[in-house]
Order: sequence, then C-alpha cells, then structure tokens
Amino acid sequence: MRAYDIILKKRNGGKLSKEEIEFMVNGYVKGEVPDYQMAAFLMAIYFRHMDPEERAILTEVMANSGDRIDLSSIPGIKIDKHSTGGVGDKTTLVVGPIVASLGVPVAKMSGRALGHTGGTIDKLESIPGFRTSLSEEEFFENVRKIGIAIVGQTANLVPADKKIYALRDATATVDEVSLIASSIMSKKLAGGADGYVLDVKVGSGAFMKTIEQATELAEAMVGIAKAHGKKAVAVLTNMDVPLGKMVGNSLEVLEAIETLKGRGPEDFTELCLNLAAWMCHLAEKGTFEECLAMAKESLESGKALEKFRQLVEYQGGNPEVVDRPTEILPLTDKTVDFIAPQNGYITAIDTEKIGIASNYLGAGRKTKEDTIDYRVGIEILKKLGDCVKKGEPIAKLYISDKSDVESALKLLSESYKFSDQKPEHKPIILGIVK
Amino acid sequence: MRAYDIILKKRNGGKLSKEEIEFMVNGYVKGEVPDYQMAAFLMAIYFRHMDPEERAILTEVMANSGDRIDLSSIPGIKIDKHSTGGVGDKTTLVVGPIVASLGVPVAKMSGRALGHTGGTIDKLESIPGFRTSLSEEEFFENVRKIGIAIVGQTANLVPADKKIYALRDATATVDEVSLIASSIMSKKLAGGADGYVLDVKVGSGAFMKTIEQATELAEAMVGIAKAHGKKAVAVLTNMDVPLGKMVGNSLEVLEAIETLKGRGPEDFTELCLNLAAWMCHLAEKGTFEECLAMAKESLESGKALEKFRQLVEYQGGNPEVVDRPTEILPLTDKTVDFIAPQNGYITAIDTEKIGIASNYLGAGRKTKEDTIDYRVGIEILKKLGDCVKKGEPIAKLYISDKSDVESALKLLSESYKFSDQKPEHKPIILGIVK
Repeated sequence: MRAYDIILKKRNGGKLSKEEIEFMVNGYVKGEVPDYQMAAFLMAIYFRHMDPEERAILTEVMANSGDRIDLSSIPGIKIDKHSTGGVGDKTTLVVGPIVASLGVPVAKMSGRALGHTGGTIDKLESIPGFRTSLSEEEFFENVRKIGIAIVGQTANLVPADKKIYALRDATATVDEVSLIASSIMSKKLAGGADGYVLDVKVGSGAFMKTIEQATELAEAMVGIAKAHGKKAVAVLTNMDVPLGKMVGNSLEVLEAIETLKGRGPEDFTELCLNLAAWMCHLAEKGTFEECLAMAKESLESGKALEKFRQLVEYQGGNPEVVDRPTEILPLTDKTVDFIAPQNGYITAIDTEKIGIASNYLGAGRKTKEDTIDYRVGIEILKKLGDCVKKGEPIAKLYISDKSDVESALKLLSESYKFSDQKPEHKPIILGIVK
Repeated sequence: MRAYDIILKKRNGGKLSKEEIEFMVNGYVKGEVPDYQMAAFLMAIYFRHMDPEERAILTEVMANSGDRIDLSSIPGIKIDKHSTGGVGDKTTLVVGPIVASLGVPVAKMSGRALGHTGGTIDKLESIPGFRTSLSEEEFFENVRKIGIAIVGQTANLVPADKKIYALRDATATVDEVSLIASSIMSKKLAGGADGYVLDVKVGSGAFMKTIEQATELAEAMVGIAKAHGKKAVAVLTNMDVPLGKMVGNSLEVLEAIETLKGRGPEDFTELCLNLAAWMCHLAEKGTFEECLAMAKESLESGKALEKFRQLVEYQGGNPEVVDRPTEILPLTDKTVDFIAPQNGYITAIDTEKIGIASNYLGAGRKTKEDTIDYRVGIEILKKLGDCVKKGEPIAKLYISDKSDVESALKLLSESYKFSDQKPEHKPIILGIVK
C-alpha cells in the first residue's frame, strides 16, 4: 500500500477501505506518511468528502490512536455532552450538576482549547482551589461517590486528532464536515461513554453559520455514534447571540451559579434544561418530557445547586463560592460601558466579534502559552430584540490593566446592528437530529 | 501575507494575484513555505484550476526562480520546440538539422528526464564521443557558427519547477492542466527563445489520452506563451502508435539518420517536416506552406543530413555515424522476435506499454541513478492497420544480458489487439492550436 495511491483514489472520488484509512492515519502518527502527503490527502477530502462508512472508520481509527477510557467500572449508563463551541457557553457547569443529581453519572473530560474565552476547564479553575487534574483513580472515585467529576483531557487522548488538526489548521482544511465530525467524535469515542448529547451551535457566534451546515454536521456526528453502537442526539441551538449574558471565566461561573439558583437568563436556562433532559432520556431515566420535568425539579428544588457545591468541594475548590460567588470568584472592579450609538431595536449581533472582544480583554488564549485572566469579560446588558436609547449602556466590559479596551470597544461597535423594526424572536432550540 | 490565506483563497475558487503566487512559489523555493502547505495548495489548484492570467504569472514566477538564458547575442528569431513526450520520439534529431539548414538558429536545451527511453540528450550520447555538456560560450559559439547546438539543461534552470514537480509527483497533483502547462512553459521561458512550436502528443502512448485533454493543454501553453509576448503554435500529434519504428537510444539515432537521408518512416517524416515548417514559419521565413516546401527540399537535397553531420562533429561525436550508422552506433546483435499470437489486423497498440517494455530491456532509467544501455530497444515491424499472420514477427527486441525479456514480451502481448476488420487510418497530425 502506498500513500500516493490512497491520495489519488480519494482525489478521484473513490471510497476508501478501512485498511487505506488506517494506513494514512496510523502512518501519519508514526511519521511514516509525511505531512505533505497528509496535507494533500486532507485537501482531497475537503473536495471529495467521505461517506458515512468512511467517516465511522476514520473516527474509530483516530480514537484507537491513543488511550481509550474504560468507564465500565462506573455503574449506570454514561452519557457525555459535547458543544461545538460558542460565545458564553458555560452549559456544562449547569447541565453536569442537574443530570448528576438525577442519578446519571457524569465522568466528563473537557478541553482547554484556544478560543475567545477559556474552555470549561479554565472556567472551573477560576474557582479558587479547584483542581482539574485528578488522577484516574480519583476521577473514577469521585464519579462513583458523588456522581460527577470534570477534568481536563489526558495527554494521550486521540493523538492522531491532535496531529491532524494542527495540520488542517495550517492548510485550510478545517471546515469539512467529515473531518470536523470525526475529529469531535473520535474524542467522544475514546472518552468511553455509552451515548452523547451533541450541542451544535448555529449562527453568527458559531463555527456553523447556517442551519443547513449545522444539520449536516449533526447528522454526520449522530451517524458516526450510531455506527459504533452508541446512543446519540444532536440539539441545534441558536448562537446568533451570546449564550446568557456573561462572557468570560469568573463571570460565566457566576452566571452558572445564578442559573443553578433558578435566577439564570431565560435562554440559557432553557438550553441547560433541554440538554440535561436529553442526557437523562438517553440514560433511560424516562421519556424526554418526563426527563425535562425532572430537570426542572432538580433546578427548582436546589438539588442541582447542591450537586455543584459537592463537585467544587470534591475537586478542592472553595464550596462557599456557591453562597458568596462575587466574593470568592476573582473579579475586577474596573469596568467600562459600551454605549448605544443610536436609538432603536438591536436587530443583529455579530457574536463572534463579542467573543474576540472578550479575548482582547484577556479572557482567552491567543497562543497555547498565553495565560488567562479569569477576572475579565463582558456582560451583555441588552440583547437581540431589545429597544435601546442612544447613550444607554448595551454591554459592560470588565477590564484589567492589560486589556486592549480600545480594540474591544471597536469590535463591539462593529458587531451591533440597529433598526426601528423589532426583529422576530428566534428560539434557543432550533432543531433536533437523532 | 500568509500561506494559509492563499491556500484558502484558491480552495474557495478565488483568483490569485501576482504577489500571492510569488509568495507561495518563492517562499517554497526558499523553504519559508513548508511542503505541507504547498501540497495543500497544489491539491486546491487541482480542483479549482487557474485562469489564463494566473497561469501566465505562475509560469513567469517559476521561470524567474533560476537562471534565464539570454539568446540575444545570436542573430535571428530563435524558435524552440517542445514535445510533451511519447514513445520513439526522436523528432529533435531531425527537426533541428532541417531548420538550422534553413537559417533558423537552433539553441536547444533538452531534458534527460526519467522515461521509457532516454531523452534527446541520452539519444545523442549514444553517438560515440558526442558531448552534451558544453560551456555556455561553446554553446553560443556553435550556434553562431553552424546554426545549431543541442545540450543538456543547466543545473539552475527553473529550480522552482524541480522542487514543485517532485512534490506533485508524491501528492497526486501532477495531472492538472495549469500545473502541467506552467511547468513546461517556465522552462521554455527560461530558455530564452522568441517562440515555441509545441508538439502535444495524444493517445495511448501519451500523457494526454484524448484530443480534448490535449487541446486544453495546448491552449493553456499557447496562451501562456502569448501572454509573455512570445510566438507559439501547438501541433497535436498522434501517439496511439510509437513514432516511427524504433524505440531505444542507438536505434532511434539510426532511424533519425535514415530519415535525414529521406528513407524514414512515413509518419515520422511527415511529423518532422510539419514541425520544422512551423518553426521556420514562426521564424518568419515564409508562409507555413512555403516553409513546408523548404523543409522538404532540405531533406531531399541532403542539406539537413549535412547539418546533422556538422552538429555531431562540432559536439565531439564521430561524424562518420552519418555514413555508417550501424557500425559506429553501439548496437546489440542479440535479438528476440515478438510473434503474432493470431491472424488479423492490428487494431490497437497500448503504446505506453511498448515504452515500458523498452525500459525493461534497459533503454531507459527507472531511477535518476540508473544507467542507460544505448544498445537495446524495440523495432516495430508491424504497425496499426497492418494485417499479420499468426507466428509472424510483429516486433524485434534488441536485448542485453541484463534485459528483462520475459516481462517485456508479456507487456507486448498485452499491448496489441487484433481483429479481422481493418481499422481506420489516423493521420499523424491531429490538429493545430495557435
């Protein structure tokens, strides 16, 4: 077998066999297939795509390139959640405790990743003392004892994806549905859960800008999961606006705690309840409607909040963050308002720009070596459809001395559109693929 | 400027600017653009192609990557000839002397290249004493004195093409018309001639299998030439059969000499006269018809043969090769016949296989380091449309002790098709693009 022939076959629209996909992926990881051949291969996939069978194989071959977590020692059906990433996405911090409180074990490995703000792991680390690096033993022990643990990904989870992703990132071959889906699902598969709830974001703040693109990706991911005998549901959710009101690290933990107290923003609360309900449903706790009612009850009764408190405590964080979040969490008292430049309804928000603006303030990493400032971020005061008056604050910027406030404000001013017509309301849940 | 953005632009079907093409090509030659980015870029070009303007720019940027020959010290209009490569192609050995005898200077740099048989340079080197490495001074001096010199390409002619071609060869991105055309034309442009006659081969023994593909390539090459203010004509010629009767090195020189004596195979003679006429026409020696008559006269009068003798003499070869070629040229007396397996008309020849068979005998290089056996090759005794009797010799193999005769015979037996219907005759000249 030769890499050349496999590139040629895919370039000409052929369907690759398991042996051919293994040859390319394993050969690349071992350094036997050079990066220039892999790059040409990826570009050929960009144009020719992969069919559902090839995708499932690619996903498995990648998953097998490193450690695969065995969750069988944890009793019950383990359901993992994945979000394709958006601005202000702190869902795991609320959904995890809800489903854990309903008896569904949450053994969650989460990414740190580059992005506008930190990942879930970074957000949790803004809680003083919170440890996201547990030993495998401790991780399993916590899940068995309190039903939940959230840790960073181990170093050797899907090395093939790490290496291939870095190459895709340098060769303009990121945005192809087979490659995106297999990249995500290889990590899910290696994570060892029995099923997955996939939160696929759609809109100006998401990787997928249209419902068509998002549906295609959702179908690809659900297809891969099912090909491997896993349960899966994808929820298409609105990312035309930041999720909730807070964008940042401490700020998002604060909002998650408020939400666990039943005082969260409506859109964010609805999304969390839905995702939790799908997870419980896949874990066979009842019909989706029954699970949705149970999730609501968990939130209203305070059970989810108590589960969050336990999570923080068991991972070394200060549990008082639940009671006195603004005192315990690192927050800055330096703020700047972003002011409405005119009267009118807010008709569009370029949400990605809000994310980049929060990055300018210091909330995310620009390179792997960057450190995150947990304190900074953006509070959205006015959202899509709100009517504002010229001069009224639309957003509050939490800043530090190192924040590039000017660039952030410039981006914000570019990201809002106004009109005297109230725009139609778009729901948070846009569709289900299962 | 970033390589990533340029890859992305081409991937998305965009048109590249001169600066962008320069960035990629020059960056790659300097090692600043890594091979994996170049590989992805080439695959994007494979799918998105380049428009005539981009091709012209790519060609020029590549031509500028190394030395560009200045032929201005040679008086007259210099017309170069290029063949896209076929089996039994010894055209330069006949066309060069014809046009030189008609006062058109031939300052020819020719490739050695991998192939079924050697290149023009290898063929000439089968003449004892013939030197194909002349100093630049000697090269120019010969052209000025006798109107013709044929040498190997200098080391630093279009290094960008060398590097890019090696990468294309490893990444299944060879067969794209913009890349093929710019690769060929960059070397022509660097060669410094005022115009080009392009012999584009079509058929089973050629890179381009159909007249449509060949026309596309011809148009691309002529377009590039004209964009750079050069004269150009492409002649589409039939490569469904080997050109002439001889395939090999000494054997092809022998056939070229026979042709210069007016005793060559009809198809080969016709092709040489046509190519020579186009070259003279581009050199403004008359109308095409006038030039064709002049070329015929040169052949019939023996002027072209005398020019060939001069060429051999001036480059150190034994000029007696013209008078006693079978004595002077290294030839083997060991031969094996390939026998007709059945009665019937020869209706098809997979000419590429004839080429590979001659390679098995030792006539070409498999790797750059291989040495060529000038003595071996194949003499085609029966051609397309000939009626043969079972057991009658179709081809004669000139072999050495090192020849893989069995493999060669096996390939020959696969390459001939027979029928009791006489096939239609196909002319040698299939079309003109100008």
